[in-house]
Amino acid sequence: MDDSDKHRPIRVALLGCGVVGSSVARLMQEQADDFAARVGTPLELVGVAVRRLGRDRSEAGVDPALLTTDAEGLVTRADVVVEVIGGIEPARSLILRAFEHGASVVTANKALLAERGPELYAAAEAAGVDLYHEASVAGAIPLLRPLRESLAGDDVRKVLGIVNGTTNYVLDKMHTTGQGFGEAVEAAQALGYAEADPTADVEGFDAAAKAAILASLAFHSRVSARDVHREGITEVSAADIAAAEAMGCVVKLLAICERVDADPATGTDRTGISVRVHPAMIPLSHPLAGVREAFNAVFVEARSAGELMFYGRGAGGDPTASAVLGDVVAVARHRVGGGRGPGESTYADLPTLPMGEARTRYFISLDVADEPGVLAAVATEFARNQVSIETVRQTARADDEHRAEERAELVVVTHAAPDAALAATVEALAGLAQVREVSSVMRVEGE
Amino acid sequence: MDDSDKHRPIRVALLGCGVVGSSVARLMQEQADDFAARVGTPLELVGVAVRRLGRDRSEAGVDPALLTTDAEGLVTRADVVVEVIGGIEPARSLILRAFEHGASVVTANKALLAERGPELYAAAEAAGVDLYHEASVAGAIPLLRPLRESLAGDDVRKVLGIVNGTTNYVLDKMHTTGQGFGEAVEAAQALGYAEADPTADVEGFDAAAKAAILASLAFHSRVSARDVHREGITEVSAADIAAAEAMGCVVKLLAICERVDADPATGTDRTGISVRVHPAMIPLSHPLAGVREAFNAVFVEARSAGELMFYGRGAGGDPTASAVLGDVVAVARHRVGGGRGPGESTYADLPTLPMGEARTRYFISLDVADEPGVLAAVATEFARNQVSIETVRQTARADDEHRAEERAELVVVTHAAPDAALAATVEALAGLAQVREVSSVMRVEGE
Repeated sequence: MDDSDKHRPIRVALLGCGVVGSSVARLMQEQADDFAARVGTPLELVGVAVRRLGRDRSEAGVDPALLTTDAEGLVTRADVVVEVIGGIEPARSLILRAFEHGASVVTANKALLAERGPELYAAAEAAGVDLYHEASVAGAIPLLRPLRESLAGDDVRKVLGIVNGTTNYVLDKMHTTGQGFGEAVEAAQALGYAEADPTADVEGFDAAAKAAILASLAFHSRVSARDVHREGITEVSAADIAAAEAMGCVVKLLAICERVDADPATGTDRTGISVRVHPAMIPLSHPLAGVREAFNAVFVEARSAGELMFYGRGAGGDPTASAVLGDVVAVARHRVGGGRGPGESTYADLPTLPMGEARTRYFISLDVADEPGVLAAVATEFARNQVSIETVRQTARADDEHRAEERAELVVVTHAAPDAALAATVEALAGLAQVREVSSVMRVEGE
Repeated sequence: MDDSDKHRPIRVALLGCGVVGSSVARLMQEQADDFAARVGTPLELVGVAVRRLGRDRSEAGVDPALLTTDAEGLVTRADVVVEVIGGIEPARSLILRAFEHGASVVTANKALLAERGPELYAAAEAAGVDLYHEASVAGAIPLLRPLRESLAGDDVRKVLGIVNGTTNYVLDKMHTTGQGFGEAVEAAQALGYAEADPTADVEGFDAAAKAAILASLAFHSRVSARDVHREGITEVSAADIAAAEAMGCVVKLLAICERVDADPATGTDRTGISVRVHPAMIPLSHPLAGVREAFNAVFVEARSAGELMFYGRGAGGDPTASAVLGDVVAVARHRVGGGRGPGESTYADLPTLPMGEARTRYFISLDVADEPGVLAAVATEFARNQVSIETVRQTARADDEHRAEERAELVVVTHAAPDAALAATVEALAGLAQVREVSSVMRVEGE
């Protein structure tokens, strides 16, 4: 605290006092001495904007005198504005107003960043202040700072993340109990891991926003949530889970951000990035396979660093507040010592390629007639679409013993191919007379 | 590269051109455009100091004209000095000289940081420049920046790390093959994972230097390598490995940095930190248990964030260069944009407690006479030292069947207690008439 007398306190305004906001308020009070020492001057909470006064916030230790419904006025009185309201408006307008008044902003708002990131970064740049948002992806896990700063001397090739705790919990539950999707969601709701309306999580909207933020940082390009190919987990069946287990795999909802290099040898026409969210099988030996319950983890492949993984809690009041407060200390240090953190970097300006151009691998399970020529007919469809088969296994259907002579299960795992070619292959297979049903289709990642 | 004309190039001097240095030189050339865009101006390699001229360094793409044996002169011509010589001198003097001439320094030198960190930080502070050393611990894994910056709003309670790849490879080999220590070291040497003289690794010196650096950052206190309690893996036997497996555990060499709070209830007299390196059993369910071969991983427990883990490659030319170059970009950005990164922070000034005051758990396997009163005698020694037993299991010795009636194996796992009390207990047990041999003693971590 040697330097605390050299600088006036840093005024912090808190917008929102829900689960994360009240953790932030409480921890700012409990750790005040540490923050003062780390920043070089005390942090002073100058106000907490809430929608309605009158609710008891004594648990968070918030002085009732600090509460205000005048968020617009509050942001003009702060050096650092912490936005934990969520959603697009009024968060966006309040952040822009904070920048206009020279305040730096720390936010946990993934939807806003994924939708309006460039506008906000430009406004921060124009005002010469910081916009930090470590808490917007993977909660407590230090991830954006490592991507933006620690790996600034490297060439990130791929980011593979479990960034939504709700869907990870649901899929984990389906694996451990054999439950179907609906039952597992109900279990997650009962434990508070899923909301009453779980759409944002199970349809992959939350993960897609995070994928957009990760891809922007990893590839120095502009990616918004609209650019992200998104498939949720609502179609994942108990049969898919069982099929994954039979393959020595688990099913995870992955946010995937990948560099794609033009390469005539693989039929890849364009250089760009693939950003997508979909369920995928990953082998049990992959570090992400062991990520259980509602934990998050992000696997990064960089050219020099090789494989890295970051693991921790992706949500919750205190874990998210840890990330928010780390950012508050960083931007407060900049106030005291001068300088700003690295802002948006979009120099690489890589295009986001459509899903059809992404190179993926498919697991396909077919219920076929057990008669001569089936395998030839199936193999011909793969060849017609220039999809190379890695493994194929045909077995009599064990669950249908009295008809075992007539029907068989054909399981195919492909090599990587353009997703459009794989999708076309599946459609063609479904139309074959010998194929009774395409019983399971899932992409394979992590090898 | 919009801003590249606003600032002259950043002059980078490279001290050392071994495995890491040549990776740094090559990557600076290959990724020159990216670095220019990320920094806002090009990085220019102005010289590479080597001990002897004449060796062919064309593989690294180093222009022979850049090579010099005059390191002292070179550092005066740079904005950023990258030190990858290693060891205390001349690295220390060259770094101090760089600071005197206003250059920032990036180093991978763990031994120097662990021994002379405070001196170097003070010199950087006095010169108003940066001292960055991400590569000094856990190679490519972004770890120091997350600890110092991302977790600056949190309260780190414990750091548990596998930070030496050689010993992890050796212990992993002992587990997978049943080999003894000597054989496993030879296997590691054959693969280049261990040096001809493996002392620095297997005796824990390397891990102790890293533990000192981690503890300093995590607890905002001064910790040097001399303060670290250090035990290597040379005493770990095949029997210890087998005993760990029987307990559902694996043996890892851990760097452990822990906050200890005074608490009369547990007999802990003083508040401080425990910093130690020793082999320990950890349960298979712990995230660190799955870290195989020469990989590194660091597990962090913080009050708000909860459990975090960072995983990746801890050594090698390119992985280490990734960390070095991330730091180079960071300090170069500061040159362009103003400001400095956060320096040393020792405000908490916590004492490093002696090993005897650390609270640990012991696994103890005893070869005892199978006769009445043995368990009572053993239990009495634990009680006398106020050590609480968590589990106890007595079995006839299976490997000694003809004497099974006379001898038994007694396995005890304790609750946490001061290490001195546990050590005293083991000594007392060894002196009991009924104890033929203390066949295995190891600390237990990770629960």
